[in-house]
Amino acid sequence: MTNVMSPSVRVASPGDASNTTAPTHFAKTSLETYAYRRFGGGAAPPLVFLQHFTGTLDNWDPAVTDALARGREVILFESAGVGRSTGEVPGTVPAMAAHLLAFADALGLTRVDLLGFSLGGMVAQQVALDRPELVRKMLLVGTAPEGGEDIMHLEKPELRRILEDPGLQGLQVLVKLFFTPSEASQAAGQAFVARLAARMGEWEPLSGPKVAQAQLAAFRAWERVEGERFGKLRRIMQPSLVVNGVSDNMIPLRNSYALAEHLPRAMLLTYPDAGHGSLFQYHESFVRFAALFLDSEVP
Amino acid sequence: MTNVMSPSVRVASPGDASNTTAPTHFAKTSLETYAYRRFGGGAAPPLVFLQHFTGTLDNWDPAVTDALARGREVILFESAGVGRSTGEVPGTVPAMAAHLLAFADALGLTRVDLLGFSLGGMVAQQVALDRPELVRKMLLVGTAPEGGEDIMHLEKPELRRILEDPGLQGLQVLVKLFFTPSEASQAAGQAFVARLAARMGEWEPLSGPKVAQAQLAAFRAWERVEGERFGKLRRIMQPSLVVNGVSDNMIPLRNSYALAEHLPRAMLLTYPDAGHGSLFQYHESFVRFAALFLDSEVP
Repeated sequence: MTNVMSPSVRVASPGDASNTTAPTHFAKTSLETYAYRRFGGGAAPPLVFLQHFTGTLDNWDPAVTDALARGREVILFESAGVGRSTGEVPGTVPAMAAHLLAFADALGLTRVDLLGFSLGGMVAQQVALDRPELVRKMLLVGTAPEGGEDIMHLEKPELRRILEDPGLQGLQVLVKLFFTPSEASQAAGQAFVARLAARMGEWEPLSGPKVAQAQLAAFRAWERVEGERFGKLRRIMQPSLVVNGVSDNMIPLRNSYALAEHLPRAMLLTYPDAGHGSLFQYHESFVRFAALFLDSEVP
Repeated sequence: MTNVMSPSVRVASPGDASNTTAPTHFAKTSLETYAYRRFGGGAAPPLVFLQHFTGTLDNWDPAVTDALARGREVILFESAGVGRSTGEVPGTVPAMAAHLLAFADALGLTRVDLLGFSLGGMVAQQVALDRPELVRKMLLVGTAPEGGEDIMHLEKPELRRILEDPGLQGLQVLVKLFFTPSEASQAAGQAFVARLAARMGEWEPLSGPKVAQAQLAAFRAWERVEGERFGKLRRIMQPSLVVNGVSDNMIPLRNSYALAEHLPRAMLLTYPDAGHGSLFQYHESFVRFAALFLDSEVP
């Protein structure tokens, strides 16, 4: 069933169109061998999910992946050095984008939509620059343009307080990092981690300090810009839906404003009383709006 | 057919569910007699349209009103002193809100959604404060909170250049004011005014300098705030969808940012390469997203 090393064969069926049950596959490519999951189906191009800082395939909320998989094929991609994907995590976003391109080639993907969350949204922008013909539309969630500000500064007091809290273990850290302190947001956070924890079958290994260190280096490089700030965004012609919570303290909202003000064909959608994980907190709404965006004539 | 002075009788039928053909009705109330149009139908609460600076019933784009009227009743309201509504245009937003409340009472409306565009979005916020139980949801387009910035300063060079251009007559002024200079936006502007011009039957009289002067006074008063800036927004609990173009130079985008950052239950939607008239430029998308917002569980 898991069909290891035969990435071109479509194995998912409607019965397993869920990240709770989806088997993990492996695609051997010219660069590395990547872990991935693939499920769902429909008329739209496949939607490739690009993951956040230290996240693995197991960090994708089934409420988001499964609902979107009802109208299209969903492909969750694990980049080099993360989970069971081979190789090392690169220290730059462009090198991460090269891994996605190798993966797309191995699977024979020629036209996809991208859902890039946080770090994944940066990779998505880079892929759109490097191989524009591959990308039809993009969902850019909780992310920032090159030259963005205050990207994942884990040394900030409000983030250190969470990361260094000995009382927070495992997924509970995400409840504090991705959600606001409000009662409603925290409840949504608990529901989110309960959905993640429901995964049956094999899990990916957790990311260690080496993964984090390389990805943080990529964030630092992404904050720097040569030439005109946001100038590259003018070359990204894909219709894009930029999404964020108004209280994101990992990659603040003004980065989403910059994306939507400078990308020629971007819409912006923001959520109230939400942080970095707005797509998980408001998963029903997010899926509805994302599907409407993906399935409509642009914009 | 126009059923003048019998506002409680629902006269529209599916065949005339268009602002191109809808007759103008008149509602006599405790304050004034208001011109209005009412058409469409569906399960959702009626959607009441609140108009922009100097706009009359004839300034509502049929592409927006008619498409939204397919899922709900649409009511276009003309406030005091505008068009054929009696009385004087008040010089404050709260006084304008009082006119809407008198109108709602006369029509027996007890639960509505509001679409407030520009000045109308300010009136909508005030109505939500003054009679929260009347308002279910709000679409706040191209508008600003109390204490907002740079609201309709027609003396700005970029606006004066348009308003004082002798070569621009009638609706062509709106093409320049509501749309960006890009070819695509200007083409959308021409399509917009062609849709307005297609109205058959009676038109409302155009607004004169007296209307403009009073409404500008209301803008100036709305820019001032006593007490905490944006503090009142915390009391507006209606789910709201804030919408704007990223290049609005009549009521700049940062006012929409302030609304979405401070209203407890607001989502924000922005459009690229669009100005004050984003809802008309992207009418198909706007209608789809607005209907999704109005018809879904919140948010």
